[in-house]
Formats: sequence, structure tokens, C-alpha cells
Amino acid sequence: MAGNSFGTVFRITTWGESHGSGVGVVVDGCPAGLALSEEVVQGELDRRRPGQSSISTQRKEEDRVEILSGTFDGVTTGTPISMLVWNRDAKSSAYDALRDRPRPGHADLTYLARYGVRDHRGGGRASARETVGRVAAGAVAKRLLAERGILVAGYVLELGGVRADLLEGLDLSALREGAEKNPVRCPDQIAAAKMVRAIEAAREAGDSLGGIAEIVAVGVPPGLGEPVFDKLDGDLARALMGIGAVKAVEIGAGVEAARMRGSDMNDPILPGPEGPRFETNNAGGILGGISTGAPIVCRIAVKPTPSISRPQRTVDLSRGEAVEIEIKGRHDPVIPPRIVPVAEAMVALVLADHLLRLRAARI
Amino acid sequence: MAGNSFGTVFRITTWGESHGSGVGVVVDGCPAGLALSEEVVQGELDRRRPGQSSISTQRKEEDRVEILSGTFDGVTTGTPISMLVWNRDAKSSAYDALRDRPRPGHADLTYLARYGVRDHRGGGRASARETVGRVAAGAVAKRLLAERGILVAGYVLELGGVRADLLEGLDLSALREGAEKNPVRCPDQIAAAKMVRAIEAAREAGDSLGGIAEIVAVGVPPGLGEPVFDKLDGDLARALMGIGAVKAVEIGAGVEAARMRGSDMNDPILPGPEGPRFETNNAGGILGGISTGAPIVCRIAVKPTPSISRPQRTVDLSRGEAVEIEIKGRHDPVIPPRIVPVAEAMVALVLADHLLRLRAARI
Amino acid sequence: MAGNSFGTVFRITTWGESHGSGVGVVVDGCPAGLALSEEVVQGELDRRRPGQSSISTQRKEEDRVEILSGTFDGVTTGTPISMLVWNRDAKSSAYDALRDRPRPGHADLTYLARYGVRDHRGGGRASARETVGRVAAGAVAKRLLAERGILVAGYVLELGGVRADLLEGLDLSALREGAEKNPVRCPDQIAAAKMVRAIEAAREAGDSLGGIAEIVAVGVPPGLGEPVFDKLDGDLARALMGIGAVKAVEIGAGVEAARMRGSDMNDPILPGPEGPRFETNNAGGILGGISTGAPIVCRIAVKPTPSISRPQRTVDLSRGEAVEIEIKGRHDPVIPPRIVPVAEAMVALVLADHLLRLRAARI
Amino acid sequence: MAGNSFGTVFRITTWGESHGSGVGVVVDGCPAGLALSEEVVQGELDRRRPGQSSISTQRKEEDRVEILSGTFDGVTTGTPISMLVWNRDAKSSAYDALRDRPRPGHADLTYLARYGVRDHRGGGRASARETVGRVAAGAVAKRLLAERGILVAGYVLELGGVRADLLEGLDLSALREGAEKNPVRCPDQIAAAKMVRAIEAAREAGDSLGGIAEIVAVGVPPGLGEPVFDKLDGDLARALMGIGAVKAVEIGAGVEAARMRGSDMNDPILPGPEGPRFETNNAGGILGGISTGAPIVCRIAVKPTPSISRPQRTVDLSRGEAVEIEIKGRHDPVIPPRIVPVAEAMVALVLADHLLRLRAARI
Repeated sequence: MAGNSFGTVFRITTWGESHGSGVGVVVDGCPAGLALSEEVVQGELDRRRPGQSSISTQRKEEDRVEILSGTFDGVTTGTPISMLVWNRDAKSSAYDALRDRPRPGHADLTYLARYGVRDHRGGGRASARETVGRVAAGAVAKRLLAERGILVAGYVLELGGVRADLLEGLDLSALREGAEKNPVRCPDQIAAAKMVRAIEAAREAGDSLGGIAEIVAVGVPPGLGEPVFDKLDGDLARALMGIGAVKAVEIGAGVEAARMRGSDMNDPILPGPEGPRFETNNAGGILGGISTGAPIVCRIAVKPTPSISRPQRTVDLSRGEAVEIEIKGRHDPVIPPRIVPVAEAMVALVLADHLLRLRAARI
Repeated sequence: MAGNSFGTVFRITTWGESHGSGVGVVVDGCPAGLALSEEVVQGELDRRRPGQSSISTQRKEEDRVEILSGTFDGVTTGTPISMLVWNRDAKSSAYDALRDRPRPGHADLTYLARYGVRDHRGGGRASARETVGRVAAGAVAKRLLAERGILVAGYVLELGGVRADLLEGLDLSALREGAEKNPVRCPDQIAAAKMVRAIEAAREAGDSLGGIAEIVAVGVPPGLGEPVFDKLDGDLARALMGIGAVKAVEIGAGVEAARMRGSDMNDPILPGPEGPRFETNNAGGILGGISTGAPIVCRIAVKPTPSISRPQRTVDLSRGEAVEIEIKGRHDPVIPPRIVPVAEAMVALVLADHLLRLRAARI
Repeated sequence: MAGNSFGTVFRITTWGESHGSGVGVVVDGCPAGLALSEEVVQGELDRRRPGQSSISTQRKEEDRVEILSGTFDGVTTGTPISMLVWNRDAKSSAYDALRDRPRPGHADLTYLARYGVRDHRGGGRASARETVGRVAAGAVAKRLLAERGILVAGYVLELGGVRADLLEGLDLSALREGAEKNPVRCPDQIAAAKMVRAIEAAREAGDSLGGIAEIVAVGVPPGLGEPVFDKLDGDLARALMGIGAVKAVEIGAGVEAARMRGSDMNDPILPGPEGPRFETNNAGGILGGISTGAPIVCRIAVKPTPSISRPQRTVDLSRGEAVEIEIKGRHDPVIPPRIVPVAEAMVALVLADHLLRLRAARI
Repeated sequence: MAGNSFGTVFRITTWGESHGSGVGVVVDGCPAGLALSEEVVQGELDRRRPGQSSISTQRKEEDRVEILSGTFDGVTTGTPISMLVWNRDAKSSAYDALRDRPRPGHADLTYLARYGVRDHRGGGRASARETVGRVAAGAVAKRLLAERGILVAGYVLELGGVRADLLEGLDLSALREGAEKNPVRCPDQIAAAKMVRAIEAAREAGDSLGGIAEIVAVGVPPGLGEPVFDKLDGDLARALMGIGAVKAVEIGAGVEAARMRGSDMNDPILPGPEGPRFETNNAGGILGGISTGAPIVCRIAVKPTPSISRPQRTVDLSRGEAVEIEIKGRHDPVIPPRIVPVAEAMVALVLADHLLRLRAARI
């Protein structure tokens, strides 16, 4: 019940604070016989790592993963996979000034309300650094999915009000390839350039921007998702809303569905060589909480980075009076580009779990 | 792991199909000593019941709840509370024509993909009738929350493109009172009248409409929600996205957060007589996955009713060829008014669970 | 987390008190496609039912089961199976005298300590009547196991100090057949007759007797059980110790293992036509928490019925002073004969769950 | 659902193999505000460590624990506590000869049956080394229990047929103190000397011995345990039976209860200054699955160490033919002395979990 585990059959438990010894994850329930190496996991961690470009935080973390258990001769054995990344470049003293001054938009006050104590250094467990464990575990899930022909990939769709114009019919591999070409992870290179400029302007103003990312999974077989409470869309919503800074989750037509008529929204069913298929995909690949076989399409709305250098009003807890703070330090002015690998990881974890759960659905 | 249970400490398990013997729920983990009667549960079921007005389905179900266990002398005993509602007005023959013809926008094909068999009568377990158990359990959760001064209430914010204009500063009880005055459950009576007209026009066209509902909880103490995977917003997103027809979930500023700057989005922290409080509530009452003490604000985007009488394209599974179907029967042309009590129930269940979980957070 | 559910993939939730409206169970996670009828379930309930013979309680309960959901056309659909048995012959007034006088050996005081309130009628939820739901669910599990060639059966090995002499090499079907021929469920007919006499003598003395039952499962494939905390023997121990009146659980050689030498205890491994097999079965079919393919052998030590008519010392809670009570009513003077179907059900539930979990062990 | 986690509110996940990089545990759900240091954990690990005396394995492991997360300023923060012990003295080559020759009494064949692959070095995950994580987590649980005045302690009651004679009325602290004075952990020093001689004789014969350990918890408040499936005795049975080599678990009178009469077994209830109390404790401190307030008394029967140097019959898997093996290496000839801290840890984990769960039992 404790909140640091995710998944049922394919289940992960993450641990670690921003400025503690390190961060890590234990993956329990990964089937035996899966080829797995540190290189595969490292590849995903490198996509999440800070310091990748001028628009992201300058905190320098090599983030080398060590697999401590669960594999033998390069293959998973069915026992728990423990992965560890040491914290190296943690400058805790930068946070001393914030000890008694909760930052607006952060979890400082709420951790204190819940636990009575908190590790104030760098946000502790509420830091984005916690997602290292998610991404490492997600890399294992992606390997499992790849064995079954499933690809999960994401990109930035909108950032600081700049919307990407995605070519209809582009396949997911092409979108991901385009997205990885620029620092904002947007497949539309023209929009990407505008986004970079918007970020620079915001940074100069001591401010930050929000955006929207889209995560897609292709190759998902029909039948995944367990009604009525462990539906695929429900589990995806929880997985994605539970990433820091996400304020909305959409599946398929999303919010727009509220403005459509049934005759537009319903995806017509057509005969096909491999059984019925859907003409359109407003459902986003899920009906009744179960995958249809069409691509799973999720979108997340990400709030602007709460750490900004402009003065903000808060309270000094030791004295109970109003004060202003300016948050210095090495913060990304936008979250979406680095949230993409995290969101992909979460989607992959949900799919891997449900893929294994599907096996118990029939005698 | 099986998907028909929800919650951890306060945990429910629902059962029943649209056209089986009945529907019900077992509530496990409700604390002992809570006053509970069938009348309290019935009151919530009456709000969900079909046939309440001209705009909802004409299926007539009295939906009388029986509490079979878990109370003694009008008080809960800590043992499981089993509640049962018999199915009375189920006209199964109406569905014979649909046995081999999956309805667009419905879960017919996906249940078949998952289980290999399905109860085709009225959608079986994927029917809205399944929510009877959720609402009954939610009534118990609401009782528990009321003991702690927490009120959960919802209303329709938008329907068929008509948006309500809610007076700033109206309190939740007033909003709920206004909403219960009209068949669309919209607190803005003028908008409500327009919504009714839009529904009638859609129905005449053999079509259906979508909409947006907002659920708010006030009186929630700070500290609810268990990082990093059982966050309050994550659990709410799962609870709400898992209701049939919901395609998006927003918390606080929601999708709009993606277009804001950090300096606008961050809610300033002010000193207050009972400790720090927030000037605004873009966070929707949740930071870092933990409640702040401000009202919890959730919105759901609801797709138009998939059952429409206009001809739709589908496939006859027995012959594998394209056919057209027209869905006759007693269907609501809009879902939001009747989804409100269901969504309230889900929010109440999440809050009750986390309220009990909070007790283990400190020594 | 609430305690009235059992199992993970194949998961049951029981509800109901001895003197409430009824008792029941929801089975969630039973695979679709399993043939299931009320008759199959009824057959198991009849074995558990009171009033079967002169040595068991004279409470007359027909115990007719109703399957309310989860099947269609005689086959499971993958949705929850809700089963209900109404309480008919509950004489609550017999318990009025016990309201303030906790019975020694019963859970009266402990329920009060935990919940602050309790349903004193007939032991409420702590009554043996609660096991109706377990047996009904176990019947479903047994059906699933039977599809895979697995048989679970039990019998009484010792009662009131009389030990059965079981012929070496008798197969499980023969043992079960012998056991069902007499009211004490002992396959050794001579021992059975002595047991009946011992019971009659104890009853005349206003006293009760304990005993030992053995439950065996044959046909279990190797590989069931999930190290290191959901081991098959651990889960069986929990399932069996959690039945009221059980004070010890043994697997294979059990307590005797403590007095053996390694060279005797270790079962030699021999080559066989279908792979390695074991010469002996001191392990009871489980090594490292995983089934070996040999028969699973469990034994439970059952305490004497706590309800006896001889005077016993207790306390009147309303006055806080010592009193004597004599428990009248319709109580079995021994528990083992009627515990056998319950213990079989629990073993079947554990095996069904692990059978489904095994599917996720390899890619 | 994956099997390497234990507990619900106070929940641990262990990882690591005998000859991998290390072993460890993540404790999730430990309340914030508990004083915790590496020294406290180390103290428990030292009791479990190999090489403590002439009768235990000569493998030399310093077993230094590192706490990587979850504490700040010497106090738990409510976030996951990750603990790690590196493997140092692992001589894997000693196991090369056993790669294709499954050891009788070990889990070699069953891991292979379940997972298709296995890490054969030192038993992999099935090694006693896996219990390092349990003992480390148990140390945290013991700290939590100590705050509430609960002491958990164990000792060896019988070994190689030698039974300890424990003075009636000795308190638990005195028993534990006596037990820690000798290498067999038996509070009866005369019996302890005999046990040591029996061990030496068995070792000379290339054989091993079994025994019985008793674990007692005092200071446990009434009300712990969640009927009807998460009963305290059921959870203890699972926790203890799930330790390698345990073949039987008894609570209170245990197996002897089967031979008692109700009038002897039932513990009379007496008035007391702090409410009703029990004259005797045949129940072992648990009635109806809920603690009574009397000491919790559990016993485990432990089989002889399966690794013996005498020749044993097994099968060479690569050739499918019968062979003899002699297991060389550094093995304890008896398990009970070193199982005591492990069993204490498991009991402490169960109690800590139920202590936190008790908080949700009443409004």
C-alpha cells in the first residue's frame, strides 16, 4: 500500500532523494529469459539526463546505472532487478536558504503537512531526480514490449504556446527520430526553433513555460486492460498524472470529445483481413478500458517549471511572516522535453504490466 | 490484482452485469463505528437512477439497495459491507440483434478480444449499470468524509458546446444546490436551459452530445496522497478516467497550465491564522501529489453517448462483412448529468482511502 | 489491504455474519471460458453444511447457493462471480445472554478490542458460518484445477487422540472416497468408529475434542510458488492457519523434520522418463517455496471446539466481575470433519492463484 | 503481486543473489519521525552474520549495511529506506561442479522448473544470504515496535533431539539474554552444551541436524490482526513458513491443541485492573486472528541443513543419468541458531504492519 511501488505483475519500487546517496529502483516480476544489459538502460537514462543542451539544467550528472541483481549471463532470471545510480553533483548548500521558505508551486509545504519532517535539500523525494528510477525500470519494460513488437515513443506537441504541425500519416518511428533531433524534442523542426526562442525569452524574463507532450504506443495487441477499475486508460491516467508537473491527461480525442457529436466521435468499424478494424481513432486505442489494437494515444499538459528566478511571495515558517524569494540555481525553464522519456517509461510500465496480466484472462 | 476492486485501505469490489440477476458491491475496510443506513445509500442511488427526467433513459429501475452485512444497530462494525440491487427492468431481447454486430464506440469488440466470450446483453459488465455499485460504495465513503467535515460535490460545466458561467466565489453547497434544480445538473440555470434545448435537437437528429463535469471537494485537510506513485492527483485521474466515456481528466488549471508562465501558475503562499495558505488555486488543491488544504478541483471531459439511432458502419462478426446498424432502445443522449454522482462517488472513494492511509504517515 | 480478500490473480472477497441476512463471496480474476454451474458449487457446500450427521451441529441450513453474476450460457465470462447464500435458521436470541460475557476460546474480546463494537449474535463474522463463502469460491478454484488435472482432497488423520492407520500407497481418490463414508471423514474405518465413540463420550462430559486433518493435492505441476515472500508453502500456511481453530500447519515431514538428519530428510533425486523425480517426499512437494511436481502434503492441528456446555470462567463486561457461563446451543463437539472441505477450499484457492501467476514467470 | 515484497502498509522489497553484487532491501511505508541509524541495523545483521562461531559457516562476510535513502538528520522522513550490503567473500567457482547437478533438499530443480534459467552460484536467490534484507528491514520494524513497548525475541528450543528445559515464568528479556550467551542460542545452558556436542558429532558424520525455535513478542496491544484473511496468526504463519528450511509453524499450544479437550484448551478469562485478562495462554496471544494482549508465541520446526558432505543421489541434467554428489564448502550443520534473528525479523515485520493497520479500524 505504501506509495513507492507501481504495477502489479510487473512491479517497480523506486527510492532515493535528490541530495541523498543515490537513487534507484527494484523491478520485481520481470519474466525470466529477457536479454538485458546496462547499456540498454543507460541509453534511456541518457535521454533523461540533465545537461543535455543549453535549454536544460546545467547540473552535471553522469548518471551511470549499475544493475546489482536479477540477471545472469546477460539474461533476466525472474528474480528482482535492482538498479542504482549514485548522486554526484548534488550541491545541497544551495538549498539552505530555502529550509524555512516553502517554494510556490513546489511540494515543500505538503510534504511537511504529511510527514512532519522533510529533506529540504533539492526537493528531496519530490525532485525530478526521483524519475531516474522510473526511466531505468521503463527501459526494462520497453525491452519486454519490443520482444512483442510494441514501440512506445513520445514528443513535444506544444510548448510556450507554440504548436507543432505534425504531418498526417507520419509513422511513430519517424516522429521519434525527428523529435530527437532538437533540444525541445518536437518532431516539427520549424516549431522546434520557435520553441527554443520562446524558452530563451522566458529565461531572460526569469520566468518559465509549460507545454503539451504526446505519447504513442504502436503494436499493442487488442485485449489489454482489466475492467472495471484497472482499465488501461485509467492506469495510464494515473501513471501520467503522477509525474510531477502534469495537470491534465487526455486519451484519444481527449477534451475535444466533449464538443463532438456521437456520429463524429464513434470510430466506424470496418472489415479487415485480420478481423475488424477502426476507420478512425478518436478512442485513442482504448474502448471500455481495453486496448483495441489501434495505436494508444495519450497527451499530457505540463505546467511551467515552478522554480523561477523572479521574486515570489511566500512565508517564512520559522517566523510566520510574509517574505519574497528568488530561486537561484540550475533549473530547466521548461519541463516537457525532459518529461518525454519519463512519460514513455510510465506508459511502457503500464503496458508491460497489462501484457502479463492478459495471460490470466482465459483458461 | 483482478480489476474489480478499487482502493487499498478503504476498498470496494463491484460485481454484476446489466442484464444479470443484479449488481452490487462489497465495501471492505470501512472503519467501525460509522452510522449508516439504507436510506443514506438510497439517496445517492436515486441521483444516479435512470428515468429521472425527459432527457435521460426511460429504463425504469427502482434500484432499491439492500445492505446485507457489515452493520449492526445502525452502525458499521468493521466487517465487509455487502450491498445489493436487483435488476428488474432488463429487456435482454432488445440486444439479440446486436449479438454479432459490435457497436461503434462501445466495448463489444474489446471484451471479446480479451475474454473470448462476452455477455452481449446490454453491454454486460461494460454497461453504465455497473456504476450502481460505485455509487452505493461512494455513499459510504461520503458518510465517512462528512464526519470529518469534507464535502464532495459535482456539476455540469459544459454540455453540447454550451458553457456555464459560474459566479466567482459561490460556495460548493450553493453550486450543488443550483445543479440539482435542473435535469442537466448545471448550476447556471440559463446555461442549463440552453443545454436542454441542445439535447433535444441532438436527439431529434438521432445523435448525441458530450460535455464537461467538474467535481470539487472542500474541507480536505492537507497531507492526503502518498508519493510517488499513489499521489492524490494520480489516484483521482485513474478513478475518473476509469469511468466509461471519460476521455480527459484535469486537475486545477488543467490543460490551460500548459499555456501559462511560472509566475502566473505558481499559487503565492500567504501567512494565515492557521498557517500558510494559498492566494490562488491553480494547483487544484494538490502539490507533489499531496493535498494542500485548498479545494480539490477535478474536471472530466465526457464523450457523446455512443448509442445513437443514426445508422453507423460496423461488421457482422459471423459473416465478416460490413453492415449498418441503428441502435434502438432507451439511451440517454448525453452522459454528463448522470455521470456526476458517479464521479463524485469515485472522488469520495479516493479521499476516504487516503484519509485512512494518512494515519500511517507518522509515528 | 482490508482483510476480507484472499489471493492476487484469482482473488476472492467474502462477506456476511452468522446472523445477518446472508453470507457470500465475490470471485474476481477467474479466467473466462470455465464451465460453471450452481450444482458444482452446491456439491461442495453440502459437504460443509451443518446437520449432516449426529456428530455435527443440529442447526438446519439448506445453504442454497445463487450465482448472481459472472457466468453466461454456463460458462465464466471473466467478470466477477458473485455468490450468495441466505441465512435461514439463525436463532439470535440464544446469544442474548452472551452479549456481555465473552466466551473463552472465542474471538469475542478481540473483536471488541479491535473495532470497539461487535455483532455478538453467533460470533458475527468470526463464526464458522463465514466459511460458506470460502467453500463456494473454492469450488470454482477446484473446477479450474480439475481442468489441469489437479485434485485436492482432505481427510481426518487424528481425532481425540485416535490416530488413523493409512495404508501406504493408497491413492488420493481412494482416501477421499473412504473418508466420505463416515461422519468423521477418516479413511480408516476402524479408527473412524473409535473417533465417533470418543466424540460421544466428550459430548456427554460437556466437553469437546481436537484433531488433525491432512490435505493433499496431486497433479500439481512443478514451478508453482513465487519466491521469496509468496512461496507456495508460505501461502498455504497462511491460508490454513487463517481458518478458525487451526493452531499449527505442517508441510511434508512437518514437525518431525526437526528431529531428522539431513541424510534422511533430503529426498534423493532420480532420473525418470519425464525428467528428474524424487524418491521420497519429505519436502511435501515444495522446495524453495516452489512446487516440485510431487504431491503437496499439508497437515493442520485443530483445537477442540471452544463452545462447551461445561461451566467456564469469564467476566461480565458490564459489571467487570468474574462469572461462570455454560454455553448452550447447537455446537459440533469436534471441528475437523467439517473443517476438511474448508481447508480443501483454501488449498485450492492458493493453487489456482499460483497456477495463473506461473504464466508470468517467463517471456 | 510479484513475490519479493512483504507487508501492506509497512512494506519491504528485498533483492539480491548469493553471488551477485550485493543484497538489499527497500522499506516503504515506515512512518516519518522514527530515529534510525546504521548502527541499529548493523547490530541485527551481526547476529545473523556467518562466521560467528565454530558451529556456523566459515564464510567471512563483514556485512556492513549502508542506508542510502529515507532518513535525514537521523530520523526517518516517510520516504523509502533503501539499504544495501555488498557481497565480498563469494567464491562462485566452488559451485561450478553443481551447475548440472541439482542438490537434494535444495531449490535447484524448482527454480529451473519455474524460470527456465537460474543463477546456480551459491543457490542464487534461494540462498540464506537473501535473508540479509529481511533482517535489515526487521531492525527498522523492531525500532518502531520498541517505541510502543513491544519486544520480539527468539531462541532455540530443541536441536538434534536435545530439548531445552525453560524455567517457567522467566521473562523474555532474560530468555534472550541467556540465549545470546552460547553459539546455539538456547537459553538453557546445559541443553546448549549438549546441542553443541550433537552438532559436532553430526558434522563429523558428514551430516546435519534440525531443530525447533520459539519466537515470542511481549507488549503487543490487543486488536492487531485483520479478519478474516489477514489474521495475525495467518500472517505470522506465512512469514515464518516462508523462511527457507521451515516445515511447520505452531501458535500457542500448536500441534498439542489437537490432543486437548476444550475445557483444558480454552484460556479462562479473569477480571483485571486493566480489563479482562487470560489465566493461561494456550491461544498464544491470538483469538479469531486478533491479538489478545497476552504474549504472542510462535514455534517453527526447522529441517536439517540440506547441504551435507555425505554422498547423495541426484541426476546429472546434461546427461540425464544418476550420479552421486558430495557437497563441499562452508555450510552450517544446523540452521536454527542463525534462523532466530531472521524469524524475529519476520515476526517484527508482521507486527509493525498490523500496528499501522490497526489505526484504520475505527472512525
